[in-house]
Amino acid sequence: MGSEDLVNLALRRSIFYPSAEIYSNSPSGFWEFGPIGEAMRRKAIDFWRRELLQKESFLEIFGAQILPESVFRASGHLENFNDPIVQCRKCASLYRADKLIMDSSKELVPESISTAELDALIKKHEVKCPKCKSKDFATARKFNMMMPVSIGATGDVQCYLRPETCQSIFLDFDRIFKTCRAKLPLGIAQAGASFRNEIAPRNTLLRAREFGQMEVEIFFNPKKINSIERWGEVAEYKLNLMQLGKDVRAVSCADAVAKKILSGQLVAYYLARVQQLYEKYGVPLPKMRLRELADNERAFYAKEAWDFEVECSEGWVELIACNNRADYDLKGHAKESKKEIKVKEEGDSEAFIPHIFELSAGIDRTLYVLLDLAYKKEKRGPEERAYLDLNPKIAPYFSAVFPLVNKEGIDERAKALANELSQCGIDVLHDDRGSIGKRYARADEIGIPYAITLDFETLKDASATLRERSSMKQRRVKIAELPEALWKLQTGKSEF
Amino acid sequence: MGSEDLVNLALRRSIFYPSAEIYSNSPSGFWEFGPIGEAMRRKAIDFWRRELLQKESFLEIFGAQILPESVFRASGHLENFNDPIVQCRKCASLYRADKLIMDSSKELVPESISTAELDALIKKHEVKCPKCKSKDFATARKFNMMMPVSIGATGDVQCYLRPETCQSIFLDFDRIFKTCRAKLPLGIAQAGASFRNEIAPRNTLLRAREFGQMEVEIFFNPKKINSIERWGEVAEYKLNLMQLGKDVRAVSCADAVAKKILSGQLVAYYLARVQQLYEKYGVPLPKMRLRELADNERAFYAKEAWDFEVECSEGWVELIACNNRADYDLKGHAKESKKEIKVKEEGDSEAFIPHIFELSAGIDRTLYVLLDLAYKKEKRGPEERAYLDLNPKIAPYFSAVFPLVNKEGIDERAKALANELSQCGIDVLHDDRGSIGKRYARADEIGIPYAITLDFETLKDASATLRERSSMKQRRVKIAELPEALWKLQTGKSEF
Repeated sequence: MGSEDLVNLALRRSIFYPSAEIYSNSPSGFWEFGPIGEAMRRKAIDFWRRELLQKESFLEIFGAQILPESVFRASGHLENFNDPIVQCRKCASLYRADKLIMDSSKELVPESISTAELDALIKKHEVKCPKCKSKDFATARKFNMMMPVSIGATGDVQCYLRPETCQSIFLDFDRIFKTCRAKLPLGIAQAGASFRNEIAPRNTLLRAREFGQMEVEIFFNPKKINSIERWGEVAEYKLNLMQLGKDVRAVSCADAVAKKILSGQLVAYYLARVQQLYEKYGVPLPKMRLRELADNERAFYAKEAWDFEVECSEGWVELIACNNRADYDLKGHAKESKKEIKVKEEGDSEAFIPHIFELSAGIDRTLYVLLDLAYKKEKRGPEERAYLDLNPKIAPYFSAVFPLVNKEGIDERAKALANELSQCGIDVLHDDRGSIGKRYARADEIGIPYAITLDFETLKDASATLRERSSMKQRRVKIAELPEALWKLQTGKSEF
Repeated sequence: MGSEDLVNLALRRSIFYPSAEIYSNSPSGFWEFGPIGEAMRRKAIDFWRRELLQKESFLEIFGAQILPESVFRASGHLENFNDPIVQCRKCASLYRADKLIMDSSKELVPESISTAELDALIKKHEVKCPKCKSKDFATARKFNMMMPVSIGATGDVQCYLRPETCQSIFLDFDRIFKTCRAKLPLGIAQAGASFRNEIAPRNTLLRAREFGQMEVEIFFNPKKINSIERWGEVAEYKLNLMQLGKDVRAVSCADAVAKKILSGQLVAYYLARVQQLYEKYGVPLPKMRLRELADNERAFYAKEAWDFEVECSEGWVELIACNNRADYDLKGHAKESKKEIKVKEEGDSEAFIPHIFELSAGIDRTLYVLLDLAYKKEKRGPEERAYLDLNPKIAPYFSAVFPLVNKEGIDERAKALANELSQCGIDVLHDDRGSIGKRYARADEIGIPYAITLDFETLKDASATLRERSSMKQRRVKIAELPEALWKLQTGKSEF
């Protein structure tokens, strides 16, 4: 069971597939989601919204994707958001220098390495061009990964597609803080697309040029980093921490703060919420870790950074960057825009710049890893079949309704049922054709938890077969009782 | 009650506001949604999804926003997606030529006018530069409104931000049709951002440079335009049709087809579904019309076009472009990509290129118009107050829970209730502060249908006050019964 099987399934059922694939010259690193994939993608975001944002009272905004250059001068992206690239002098192929060296030498190359050091490593390891085998490379150079866009008919306003969704959160903080009558700590979130001109997009959804992020920026008073209202709820909860140069250990939040592994309760609290969120998504605890980043691995704005990683068939994949950005962002924007961005708390005499702890999650990566972990191939009924053993809340549809295909008008009954279910907030797929066994297999393959089949019995007693994906168990239910039965299953008020 | 009041409310409550507003040099035409606006925006899209897509069994995809140049060569946008612009020779100000003439002369200028004709009209009406009053303009020229983006480190792949979301639908049609085992007519939908480098963005959300679209492309067999399965459901339904040069008349779908006002049942059927969708959103019938576009008003790809317009305080606003694009798009992409895109139906011997009828709705425009129509200012209690008399399904939250603010731990009870409601699929806003009257007023102002207040009585009998926004009626309900009571109100299973 590997990623190849999953990608095959994705292409066969149009869960995800390359963008503009009918054109042979389409750039790589752009993906589309078909009906099933789009439903899953939306569910994964909704889950984050319900299980993290709502429970923590975070506020969600929706900002523009194009932002003016000043924003990225202030944020440091204009100067620092670069990838080192190197070009083969013989065949003109272009590579990300650090990846090229790592692939060829297996030596770990840190993110903050200089171009001169990269040139030296290329020489030292006698790196060859993977395409033409030449060892003759031009000197490495930095390439800014943002995508510029000119706005206005004379191209007068230089803008960029945002490389991270969080910049609008920083820009909007002052307004949201005031108009929403908020107090610190305040979490502001956003889900949407970000754009990075990657040199070498790869691994389908894991490194794309246009990709989804769901980010939370938590604004807090640095003096109160150890005064967290609901600390008691997580103090004894154990984080899978992987400190620099050490193995993963389960450490309670309280211990992690007491032993100064983490800089304060606030950091421990939200790392706990991250780990708990992914437990709820359905990721087993042993497959998660919070990996501490070394100085030269951290993004340029982070003073403390933990990558939340999940192990799947692609190895350990970073799903969330948890960064203590301190006052880097608000300070930068205040300076560049010449607007004061400060907060005064009740009883305090002095205004201060809030610090920021961020939980920056990848949407497509989360979806990919959840699919990878849910992918099972085993004997189901007479033959071996692939199916997605997915958390019902991430399934593309909560139920499928299969009509009786004859001339008696039963189709209409199935449609009416499907409509009633959807009015009750239960997602439903309908009108798939084929034999019952094939329909179940096709529904299982995309992870639909419950299937409802109308058949000849239905004509006599207005009942239907309700089947559970994971157990393949079936029971007979009156059609009139199905909306409530499914609603109870969906909200966890009953079990099958 | 005018748009100024609404924009004031939007800014005061951060429903929507200009993007990157702390920077004085930010380009206009970019907007952000705060927590309340974002919730409404999401609800408006979900409503479209549930009431149109789900009921019509349309499939929804999610495509990349950046597409390669070949796509727009095939689509005709490279050649035809232009605005006429004209520059003042004295002060260098730039204008959209047709708007400048219309503003100055009140003469209607058709979309397809040539630049030479525009120059002639500028002379004829002695148009002055609004800024410096000079009459000296350079000759008008066409300006392509797409935003170019270069992909790859050497800028080798020329791409564009999509000017309409539908292009990915055309590109993906062949794959979706096959892998989803679909049959014609097949509706494929997408909701997402589009980008147009407007010369003169204006009226906040009504003409922005980055804006949301929710589009449906219906692929059909042109020979079967008069064979629609559920035709009986709409045949007698009356459309508010405004034919060229005529007043609006209510015409039944059957009559519109019989009298050849519309080209076939399929067109009438989906126009009916559009009008019904907006009836459900809460728009009164007399405020809607379907306006036929003249040859020179239609987009370059449309052979038959009806604009669905709604009257609000900004006048008649186009919310949905309903275009019969015929085989224009699939033919163009098949030719440019050299891939055959054809369909063979059961029993047919020959494959054919499906035709397309599109329902292209604006998300931000829909939201703006719904807010504008819902905005009321009237005596509510002791004073005149503004409130949004919004369809509960578009309200940012279905309910607000107000805790008792004292030291008895009641806050926790409110939080537990809010969490239980949200687990039952009921959106809830909590922890607003202030007096009861002010809280109600603030909740009414953003259109929340139901408010729950915990008070000193709650301590005795575990009950709470449930208040309805529109009627301001209140009743007492046991806290334990609230989730079911609200779920019934939300799903229409009971009334207040």
